[in-house]
Amino acid sequence: MEKKPIEAVVKAFPAKQQRSEQTHEKLLQSGLDLLRDGVFDDISIAQIAARAGCAVGSFYLRFRNKEAFFKFLIESISETLEADLHANLTPESIKELNLAQTVRHCVDHYVETNRQYESIIRAAVQYSINDSDDWQPVRDNGLKLHDHYIDLILSKSRKSNQEEVRQQLIVGLQIISGHLVNSITHPINRLPLHDPNLSHWLFEVVMHCLKVKPPEPAMSQQKKGHLRTASPAKKTIIKRSK
Amino acid sequence: MEKKPIEAVVKAFPAKQQRSEQTHEKLLQSGLDLLRDGVFDDISIAQIAARAGCAVGSFYLRFRNKEAFFKFLIESISETLEADLHANLTPESIKELNLAQTVRHCVDHYVETNRQYESIIRAAVQYSINDSDDWQPVRDNGLKLHDHYIDLILSKSRKSNQEEVRQQLIVGLQIISGHLVNSITHPINRLPLHDPNLSHWLFEVVMHCLKVKPPEPAMSQQKKGHLRTASPAKKTIIKRSK
Repeated sequence: MEKKPIEAVVKAFPAKQQRSEQTHEKLLQSGLDLLRDGVFDDISIAQIAARAGCAVGSFYLRFRNKEAFFKFLIESISETLEADLHANLTPESIKELNLAQTVRHCVDHYVETNRQYESIIRAAVQYSINDSDDWQPVRDNGLKLHDHYIDLILSKSRKSNQEEVRQQLIVGLQIISGHLVNSITHPINRLPLHDPNLSHWLFEVVMHCLKVKPPEPAMSQQKKGHLRTASPAKKTIIKRSK
Repeated sequence: MEKKPIEAVVKAFPAKQQRSEQTHEKLLQSGLDLLRDGVFDDISIAQIAARAGCAVGSFYLRFRNKEAFFKFLIESISETLEADLHANLTPESIKELNLAQTVRHCVDHYVETNRQYESIIRAAVQYSINDSDDWQPVRDNGLKLHDHYIDLILSKSRKSNQEEVRQQLIVGLQIISGHLVNSITHPINRLPLHDPNLSHWLFEVVMHCLKVKPPEPAMSQQKKGHLRTASPAKKTIIKRSK
């Protein structure tokens, strides 16, 4: 039997690998598209495969089940997100912006990213709340974004106490992040995710956090001295109206 | 057969009804106590009954199942909350406070209420995210609190445009509400629910919202003109590192 030249084998293998990778990509893209319109639980593997133009068997060759697929989906988004950050949101890209403009730029980016991945964030929260760890990678993505924004904003701050500014930014971003997650997971009347003024308000929140001094415990106690704090609902007795 | 005097019947009945109501209360209190320490799904009806000092049968006499019990629990909390609001957080109780102090007072009350009902809010979010309506009553409670706070704060505002102030307060309360829900449903590093400075920051957010002008569309477009908005992660292509 004639031996195949080694080059032919080497050549043939990448082509096969490439096709396999394309199927992998198509499946992930299909999952992302389907998620955009619906709820993760309602999406079947048959649908994912059909939209990707491949057989259900091709799906199972690559992913153990829908949950494993979901993990790949999140991982792939993390990579896209990170590549995008380092390509488009760089010290160079904000060179001409002042502090406030940089904050606005970052908040705009954050809001847009949340809008774009709305369905995957919703699915991740849904999983996490049922005691799965699937929220963690999405949360890590959020923290990665926060760190990136903070570095850019800090580079524009003229305050000598950079650590204080960092703490203020962390709190500000955490608060607006809470609003964004809440607006994705629950129907809210005010400032929903697609409100055109959302960025404006969240920018204001972050900007203001840059001005907030940490509370001085002694002072705040003294100030509160004369306030009779209304006790919220009593702790031990549930009263029911008859 | 001798007829019982009507008074005796009337007297006997309330006593029995009272005992029955006491059992009802005890079961609800038991559920609330257990929820405070654990996850709703992990709590059994046997545990609820045992802690209330009654038989499992007594539970089923009153509630169809655990979900029905949960609905009663939320309803009962709504009533307690409402009674508390009207007893302790009244125009009279804030008579001597200025605008900022009133906002702080309301934010303190809101934070405390969220802390107190942490476990029930977590359970409600968990249910709602799995497509149940059980979040709605909890959400309604939140909106009821917001309305109450807004009325009190508006009474301290000297601005002529009360409607604008109302809109600003609605947004501010919505944003801090997002942070609170998020801090209850997910482990967060910054400003968690029991952080002693939580009220301070959330107060600052609401106060600042009172100063934010709604964005002027033309202006903000113009301002943004020279900013090259970084596109967040691309919409259609998922790139995976090899």
